[in-house]
Amino acid sequence: MTTATTTDLYPTRGTAEVLTPRQDPVVWGAPGTTGPLRPSELGDFDRDGFLPVDALIGPEDVARYHAELERLCADPAVRADERSIVEAKSRDIRSVFEVHKISPVFAELVRDPRVVDRARQILGSDVYVHQSRINVKPGFGASGFYWHSDFETWHAEDGLPRMRAVSVSIALTENHDTNGGLMIMPGSHRTFLGCAGATPEDNYKKSLQMQDAGTPSHTALTELAGRHGIRLFTGQPGSAVWFDCNCMHGSGDNITPYPRSNVFIVFNSVENAAVEPFAAPVRRPEFIGARDFTPVR
Amino acid sequence: MTTATTTDLYPTRGTAEVLTPRQDPVVWGAPGTTGPLRPSELGDFDRDGFLPVDALIGPEDVARYHAELERLCADPAVRADERSIVEAKSRDIRSVFEVHKISPVFAELVRDPRVVDRARQILGSDVYVHQSRINVKPGFGASGFYWHSDFETWHAEDGLPRMRAVSVSIALTENHDTNGGLMIMPGSHRTFLGCAGATPEDNYKKSLQMQDAGTPSHTALTELAGRHGIRLFTGQPGSAVWFDCNCMHGSGDNITPYPRSNVFIVFNSVENAAVEPFAAPVRRPEFIGARDFTPVR
Repeated sequence: MTTATTTDLYPTRGTAEVLTPRQDPVVWGAPGTTGPLRPSELGDFDRDGFLPVDALIGPEDVARYHAELERLCADPAVRADERSIVEAKSRDIRSVFEVHKISPVFAELVRDPRVVDRARQILGSDVYVHQSRINVKPGFGASGFYWHSDFETWHAEDGLPRMRAVSVSIALTENHDTNGGLMIMPGSHRTFLGCAGATPEDNYKKSLQMQDAGTPSHTALTELAGRHGIRLFTGQPGSAVWFDCNCMHGSGDNITPYPRSNVFIVFNSVENAAVEPFAAPVRRPEFIGARDFTPVR
Repeated sequence: MTTATTTDLYPTRGTAEVLTPRQDPVVWGAPGTTGPLRPSELGDFDRDGFLPVDALIGPEDVARYHAELERLCADPAVRADERSIVEAKSRDIRSVFEVHKISPVFAELVRDPRVVDRARQILGSDVYVHQSRINVKPGFGASGFYWHSDFETWHAEDGLPRMRAVSVSIALTENHDTNGGLMIMPGSHRTFLGCAGATPEDNYKKSLQMQDAGTPSHTALTELAGRHGIRLFTGQPGSAVWFDCNCMHGSGDNITPYPRSNVFIVFNSVENAAVEPFAAPVRRPEFIGARDFTPVR
């Protein structure tokens, strides 16, 4: 009899916080693989764990996607859908998950060669969408997201075995230095921070509004920030940030009148398809962690 | 019989929000008055309502004042004092008021010619301290301050008749672009935003932790930000921002591990001494709005 076992390269949610050096490449594509990213850009991504792109999509695309975002947020059926997450205080829509399935317009964005070809190039294979969402951070007090590594959650709760996923956040409104933009600790993707504490069964419902289980300690964050610093991303609508699944990142609140809206797509390698969660009693719903591994074409 | 009446140039806390053009100069000193500020700097202050100064005090001073701040925050007697305000969530000290009376070290800072001479030059007279405090914005989630004009409060609740007060915020830790720094709308000091809503009797206790009465509407803030933009201040320890009493300003939260500490002094002209509150049933305590008008010497 043969038993298939999955080795857990990245232990987390145990009794203590554990630092594990990254066991995986950052750029998976073979050197010289052609694609939209230049070798120097791949080098930057490898070193920093992220890569800003000035105008990934043009003004006409921005207008179209932004209009679609507004349409979705105003649609009572979308609001009532379990895939919509509302702001704790104001009850405004904060995120809509699985937008590439809800909206044919966003489905196109996922297939756009400017988008998916970059993901393929970084991950060195065909890719599928592990998660997609639009984020709306309304002005006048929307709260931020506390520090976390996405991979920590995707590994613990969704069962992604390896660090072979990449996210792209495309700005649909201007990201100022004042409206709660994305903050990343450059280079933090090289260390996996296994968090202390077990995962409650319905953790995802709470953690989409405010992070709790899987939260790094003050000590660990102080050390990581001391070693790596913190970079804040600003940019015009249409600009994007590609970032590795294991970057330590977060965002502050937004008291300005400027809403911060973006569309966020997570590509995972088809060779890294989700298995059972590594540190949670149940899988999260499929609109948060996909189980359909069909490659994007 | 003669009755002395005080005209209210800046009505606020009535039934509706009212915009009143500024009735007062921004720089009160006669042109050519000598002092540490160059004419171009006074011009910038007049136009923007603020003036950043790169190294107002040197590293040795920073070390001394920062040590004094830490000493005060660790002192149980200071913590128990009503002049100390604690963070709602963490119960850490957030501000200590009247530090120039509590601490001989900070009393020196107020008298330092690099500080008080600039205030005299802007206000065109002798000055006294309307308020002083140290602010500690600890990392890992300290909340910010919502948008407000200080003068709105000082007029409504402390009885400052005219816009003839200036604040200086001196950084004692680095102000990054990520740790909840001061945001000002440049040029907003030219318009007085009279707020809607009456002042409750013990408003100050609540408003020191979180702004409530005297809060501008979303509509007004959107218009002001659209007209003026928003500037975020960053700087090394020892850097300072001078800003007019009527600037629309605020700050976001601080989830970084970097605490943001500063000392904040409000100078008022001796020719603008506080009278009775213009829009509040009672005066605030003297540690928040001074009634001792002795000039700084």
